[in-house]
Amino acid sequence: MTASLEVSFIDQLTRRFPRSAAQLNAPHESDAELIQLPGGGVLAVTTDGIVEEIEAGLYDDPWLAGWMSVVVSASDLAAVGADPLGIMVCETLPSDAAPAFIEALQRGIAAAARAHALPVLGGDTNRSARLALTTTALGIVADGKPLTRRGALPGDVLFSTGSLGLGSAYAFAKLRGGQCDYQPRARLREAGILRSWASACMDTSDGVIATLHELGSRGGLGFALDDLPGVMHPAATRLAQHAGLPPWALLAGPHGEFELLFTVRRDRSQEFVAAAARQAWAPLRLGTVNDSGRVSIADGGLEVSIDAGRVRNLFQECDGDPGRFVRALMNLRD
Amino acid sequence: MTASLEVSFIDQLTRRFPRSAAQLNAPHESDAELIQLPGGGVLAVTTDGIVEEIEAGLYDDPWLAGWMSVVVSASDLAAVGADPLGIMVCETLPSDAAPAFIEALQRGIAAAARAHALPVLGGDTNRSARLALTTTALGIVADGKPLTRRGALPGDVLFSTGSLGLGSAYAFAKLRGGQCDYQPRARLREAGILRSWASACMDTSDGVIATLHELGSRGGLGFALDDLPGVMHPAATRLAQHAGLPPWALLAGPHGEFELLFTVRRDRSQEFVAAAARQAWAPLRLGTVNDSGRVSIADGGLEVSIDAGRVRNLFQECDGDPGRFVRALMNLRD
Repeated sequence: MTASLEVSFIDQLTRRFPRSAAQLNAPHESDAELIQLPGGGVLAVTTDGIVEEIEAGLYDDPWLAGWMSVVVSASDLAAVGADPLGIMVCETLPSDAAPAFIEALQRGIAAAARAHALPVLGGDTNRSARLALTTTALGIVADGKPLTRRGALPGDVLFSTGSLGLGSAYAFAKLRGGQCDYQPRARLREAGILRSWASACMDTSDGVIATLHELGSRGGLGFALDDLPGVMHPAATRLAQHAGLPPWALLAGPHGEFELLFTVRRDRSQEFVAAAARQAWAPLRLGTVNDSGRVSIADGGLEVSIDAGRVRNLFQECDGDPGRFVRALMNLRD
Repeated sequence: MTASLEVSFIDQLTRRFPRSAAQLNAPHESDAELIQLPGGGVLAVTTDGIVEEIEAGLYDDPWLAGWMSVVVSASDLAAVGADPLGIMVCETLPSDAAPAFIEALQRGIAAAARAHALPVLGGDTNRSARLALTTTALGIVADGKPLTRRGALPGDVLFSTGSLGLGSAYAFAKLRGGQCDYQPRARLREAGILRSWASACMDTSDGVIATLHELGSRGGLGFALDDLPGVMHPAATRLAQHAGLPPWALLAGPHGEFELLFTVRRDRSQEFVAAAARQAWAPLRLGTVNDSGRVSIADGGLEVSIDAGRVRNLFQECDGDPGRFVRALMNLRD
């Protein structure tokens, strides 16, 4: 499987940094950092800067920028099965921002913090030419057994907390001047259910295929998605039809829908689905884990087989240009 | 005492944000947020964006920018008496940064993380036009009794962990194209000694006078500094002489030396100094706390009396222009 350029770059950046003996996860192993607390319990902490998405124009609505700044970090807490303690918000505000812009941004942050029961603990403010938001979310893993990206095995069943493709569909529509509703919620409630069943878990903040690549990267795992039309978000399906793109292309973009992808051992999967149903939740079955090192996607009569690492690197290789990315993606297929 | 514009602005920004019942401090009450952990113990967490300092040209050396990004957050841990758990580093790298620039930045981060025994737990990277760094430091208050900014009383003795004025001296020299060594260390070791003695504590990240203003703001407290020449950093004294500024002006700028200012009850202060001496540390006695609501500074035969709130607001009122700030500061005296 092709290695991730982003992972290599981060490893290069951080190779001199001192590490903590109390840290339970190695780099890239989990969506949040996992720290054994001296008094017992596991602290989950995650930090995310929203800069590139804002500069690309995806969140030119300040309310949405505020909302997303909370969601991105809350989603990482969900992915490790942590209960939220709170969030720190560092805002770099445009020097020339109108009061209404700043007000809408704060309302977006406040709405998301309330929707996710994530108190705002503190933060910092700076002024600069452009808006940038950095959040750090903190949580506690109550049972001391966090979820990581690393426990999947061939034979496991692959699930999602919800339908796929909305992240890329929104980005695609937005960058072409179109319309697409987008207001994801971090799946904290669902994480509370799945966390005692999952063998591995990761959010789709960087898109579905990048997530599958990371989930499979250590064990050379592959994933077979059985029925793409059945798991696509309706808006993503519509957009693919309008744009003349194959639906799987909307799993390939680097902008996510913030669902959780997770795996459950085959012999526990029926029991898990029943337990979820008792809590009024129907997880979406995507397919199965195998040892192929590739992602295969069944779309009606067609089956597409993808080198997930190549797809994951493609946006960066196209210098973040969405038009070039889509063309390169289509060439990749051939 | 004049109220702080920055505090009012932050209160306005955050008034809709949900708060945590587990949070021990109110807004502005402490240098780090203080959270009661469900399993017992107090978590300290602080986030700082370094944007304005970089854009002002203070940290155009990438190594220093990296070093400072760790110091600013580590210093907040020191001010609440927390033992460091680790730090999260969110780097926004300039799109056109040369490899040597990125390398020097990482070396600065790594050096400061090692110097402060602060492991790097994780982080995030983005690309944008300009460098910006946001760090979040985490610590544990071992005895469950954090220091805050709020416990000083008239009669207390005011101390510093070290000499004053280097933060402003560096900024002044740097912005005029001059030279001034500047590589502050967060006072974590000293905090470990003073934390069982101090009635209030705060770091001088925003300059000495702003710190005194905040320490006194709730109780209408004032501070009398007995002997300015005896507590000034030699480089600050030299710079004041060269520039024809009164030495106290170098306590007024918004760029700090990252010392801790703290108060100790008068009847415990001798015992505290003796205890510190046994650990090979001589805290610097600055003066005393009173109820005047002002900061008075004895400089040889002269005594200057300052409305600390007005000084604190002055940089912002001058739109962050250093030249205007110095002129306005000198007018304030008259």
